[in-house]
Amino acid sequence: MKIVVYGLGIIGASVAASLKKAGHLVLGKNRSRESIDYALAHGMIDGEAQSYDGADVIVLALPPRVTVHELCVGDFPAGCIVMDICGVKTAPEAAVKQAPRSWRYVGTHPMAGKETSGIRSASDSLFLGANFVITVTDETDSKALDSVRSLARDMGFGRIVECTAAEHDRMIALTSQLCHVVANAYVTTPLSAGCAGFTGGGFQDMTRVAPVDEAMWAELFCMNADALAEEVSRLAARLKTFEQAIRNRDDSGLRSLMHEGKVCYEEFFRRN
Amino acid sequence: MKIVVYGLGIIGASVAASLKKAGHLVLGKNRSRESIDYALAHGMIDGEAQSYDGADVIVLALPPRVTVHELCVGDFPAGCIVMDICGVKTAPEAAVKQAPRSWRYVGTHPMAGKETSGIRSASDSLFLGANFVITVTDETDSKALDSVRSLARDMGFGRIVECTAAEHDRMIALTSQLCHVVANAYVTTPLSAGCAGFTGGGFQDMTRVAPVDEAMWAELFCMNADALAEEVSRLAARLKTFEQAIRNRDDSGLRSLMHEGKVCYEEFFRRN
Repeated sequence: MKIVVYGLGIIGASVAASLKKAGHLVLGKNRSRESIDYALAHGMIDGEAQSYDGADVIVLALPPRVTVHELCVGDFPAGCIVMDICGVKTAPEAAVKQAPRSWRYVGTHPMAGKETSGIRSASDSLFLGANFVITVTDETDSKALDSVRSLARDMGFGRIVECTAAEHDRMIALTSQLCHVVANAYVTTPLSAGCAGFTGGGFQDMTRVAPVDEAMWAELFCMNADALAEEVSRLAARLKTFEQAIRNRDDSGLRSLMHEGKVCYEEFFRRN
Repeated sequence: MKIVVYGLGIIGASVAASLKKAGHLVLGKNRSRESIDYALAHGMIDGEAQSYDGADVIVLALPPRVTVHELCVGDFPAGCIVMDICGVKTAPEAAVKQAPRSWRYVGTHPMAGKETSGIRSASDSLFLGANFVITVTDETDSKALDSVRSLARDMGFGRIVECTAAEHDRMIALTSQLCHVVANAYVTTPLSAGCAGFTGGGFQDMTRVAPVDEAMWAELFCMNADALAEEVSRLAARLKTFEQAIRNRDDSGLRSLMHEGKVCYEEFFRRN
């Protein structure tokens, strides 16, 4: 298939490199020339896309608001598949519904990344074994859906999940966005400058995603505000319950609270 | 040196195995016979300790309250070094100060572990490059301190930090105990059963230590209640600030909040 990947950041360039490795013809499109040159030099793309003409699939690997904008104004060829990789799915889907179109939209969310961004963090093995979410509606074209499933397997994803955009956004508030809020809030303490030498693996894990790309995540948070606010609120309330038990030195209460968490955790891993 | 390690869980057995590997004579002492047999079969100890007689160093690798109890009643030989590895340091130090003694106490906290516990998770490489905290007072014997520093290097620790028990407990509330509270609170959600397929590396990191040994951690939390409650309270307040900005879809406010976290994080890593 002839695939145009628009946006060569960590995800877009990894999509390009993985699909090229799987034998597809992959052209890159990017605002800055530098990433095109890097992708060419590192064999991540077959060439630069001058337009969308002739593309079977167009992958939009752009920041959230730019994705929505491109879905509204992009000059996509009739019949081609347009998939975005945006971390929220209700907003792009709504944009597609508003736009008159002769192309076929499939929303996706590759559940992989790193604490670093940009093409230098990309690789053709970033997605190996990772989760891949595809969002579907009554209007989703079944052949386009089959093609996207097949591309996900070509990129090396492990589990492929299909759900509605609303279901995705509800779950992702918990499994992704809340992580970034917590990691960032965790490290915002006057003690941070003094804690060298006092950290173990737990602290490193907990704070790894703290130095987020704040512009992109602020967009994602605002585009999924209701679901995320609910998760943040739930966690803050649970912390207040812990705080009270700790202040009361309530040993058995603390054991009960932790046991409840353990049961949820095991429930999660039993199904995962 | 002749070293007796009392308590062959993940930390005690790793201490024993690391020190034996470094050439010390290491004897194990444990309530259950099974761990002694396992440690002997896996070359982690040279033999079983029938008593503390003749020991140069006694390592107490016991749960927090048992540690405090043993420091009060243990029949340690005159002149020997007794070091505990308890995750809080004010309480054991206070116990030592109350007990009449002819032995030399040095408090330590090896900043390493796993999400699993027990001797089967132990290894002679657990501590390689990890942080090791030694707590000191005006009464700490300088030669005993030198010996403990030397043992820490023998076990493969990277950075060795010395501070007061109060300083340790304040920092550890942030860098260790809070991690366990947050990971556990994070997963306690009705959504946990449905989130298979929606997780990436961030979620896995964030929740890794959720299935804690609740009895041990409840003890640690109660023994460091004031410092930990303050950290939990700070984080909950920060989350409420995020929640409000998210509900208001306050893009620039969210970017500012995240930028503050990033600055703290970088400050931390600049010094670490």
